[in-house]
Amino acid sequence: MLFPKVAVIGVGLIGGSFALALKQAKACGHVVGAGRSTANLKLALDRGILDSMEGDAARAAEDADFVLVSAPVGQFEKIFEKIAGALKPGAIVSDAGSTKRDVVEAAHRILKKKAAQFIPAHPIAGAEKSGAAAASAELFRGRRVVITPLPENAEDAVEKVNQAWSSCGARTSRMTPEEHDEIFAAVSHLPHFLAYALVHDVASRKNAGELFSYAAGGFRDFTRIASSNPEMWRDICLANADRLAAEVTRFGKKLSAMKKLLAAKDAAALEQMFKDARDARDDWLSKTWAGRRPGTGN
Amino acid sequence: MLFPKVAVIGVGLIGGSFALALKQAKACGHVVGAGRSTANLKLALDRGILDSMEGDAARAAEDADFVLVSAPVGQFEKIFEKIAGALKPGAIVSDAGSTKRDVVEAAHRILKKKAAQFIPAHPIAGAEKSGAAAASAELFRGRRVVITPLPENAEDAVEKVNQAWSSCGARTSRMTPEEHDEIFAAVSHLPHFLAYALVHDVASRKNAGELFSYAAGGFRDFTRIASSNPEMWRDICLANADRLAAEVTRFGKKLSAMKKLLAAKDAAALEQMFKDARDARDDWLSKTWAGRRPGTGN
Repeated sequence: MLFPKVAVIGVGLIGGSFALALKQAKACGHVVGAGRSTANLKLALDRGILDSMEGDAARAAEDADFVLVSAPVGQFEKIFEKIAGALKPGAIVSDAGSTKRDVVEAAHRILKKKAAQFIPAHPIAGAEKSGAAAASAELFRGRRVVITPLPENAEDAVEKVNQAWSSCGARTSRMTPEEHDEIFAAVSHLPHFLAYALVHDVASRKNAGELFSYAAGGFRDFTRIASSNPEMWRDICLANADRLAAEVTRFGKKLSAMKKLLAAKDAAALEQMFKDARDARDDWLSKTWAGRRPGTGN
Repeated sequence: MLFPKVAVIGVGLIGGSFALALKQAKACGHVVGAGRSTANLKLALDRGILDSMEGDAARAAEDADFVLVSAPVGQFEKIFEKIAGALKPGAIVSDAGSTKRDVVEAAHRILKKKAAQFIPAHPIAGAEKSGAAAASAELFRGRRVVITPLPENAEDAVEKVNQAWSSCGARTSRMTPEEHDEIFAAVSHLPHFLAYALVHDVASRKNAGELFSYAAGGFRDFTRIASSNPEMWRDICLANADRLAAEVTRFGKKLSAMKKLLAAKDAAALEQMFKDARDARDDWLSKTWAGRRPGTGN
């Protein structure tokens, strides 16, 4: 057994699914949860995600062998402050934050020497649904988990985090927190920002009702991620604000260039762009998503 | 029976599905098809979409009671020129073009007096899949079809087009070509343009392979419409270039405003935007899409 006692701080889709997957793999014993919503924690108990619940993150972390911080990244400082004194020697702390530079900075600042026990990670699985009600033992199967180790982490601790996620069916890889935030600004944070922007723009017009009534399947799937958790995405956008802003600027330039093609009625160049985009996407799709159902995952 | 003989010019997803749906509803007799790809027409014959095929649009239209022009809008001029002399008196012509002002202009210019026989329409159903292979009698069930009648259309001819689409299970409504192009620039053409832009931008980077390898379900669904037919979307973007460019400009301003919130670290305003967008989308979804499966339709 990998971890006799696991503490999950924030028992939402990710934290709840992690607990269920570890249990299914018999990789853990007792799972205790803490979080802001008592109703959600009770639901997690009912669903067998948790074996016990605590009102306070420190109490939950007290004699845990593994602590997963899976709350919105804006909550991390407060959580690190609570658990810093409670961690037993040898305990491993990891997280599921969608940004990594800010999490690492907070860990160094608050956990200080105990930051050596903190191995940052980001499971690339989510959905617009949230809460323990949406948790599933299968969520991470075939999905990627990025681990961004700190220089002070012991290799065997990193390896244990690796094993935990592997036992959930995930494929792990490693990079630096900087590389992580740069990559995800482009392929995740920007698309979410654009989807929120489009829906907000349509919704704020006088004829919003009429516009929505003619929106079809393309609009629905394009904007699916605009149904994501607003607090979580507020925190992600702020934590990675510099990288995201750079991506937004870059995208704005792309749009300007494409608008020039429209103005010039450059049919050949437009078609080539669309064709190259389609081919790139279809190529990616065939390599990555064969057999997966659409409409899930962030 | 509504139309003893129907001619479908362009037997792709839309034209093929229209023929199948009319036949299923026993609203038509013989269906003849014409198009650029002989292989596609033969497939349509094999699938029972067509009863006969012609190499030329004029031959197909010759003694048809109803002619559906369902080719990319860039082909319409050529098709109108071909069928203008072939239309019998009383025959009705309609189309499935995703833009309407350009189609109406071409009809007036080329069909001249016979433009009275042309009732423009736009079925709001499509998918990133194309060709007769993707056609289905169920494609239009519950979907909207916008009819944009011309001043010179006889009301009974408009009503026949209305009945044709109703017999396919679609819900019809009417507006002017100008209203149509303004609405669809916002809810359809802009999202397609943005999706193509994002995929092209990612694909054109040095580390494109790495970026794609970390793209997940959110990216996949956001960019689904970037797998749409490049020729079709080239034509739509050019036909509605002024309205689309206005939408792109408007969207660019929205992004600039949101980037300022990032720079100001305005957590409350960002969260409110995301929340309003999510609520607007969820409200629309519950009204419009209850029970429909994702991953289909444009």
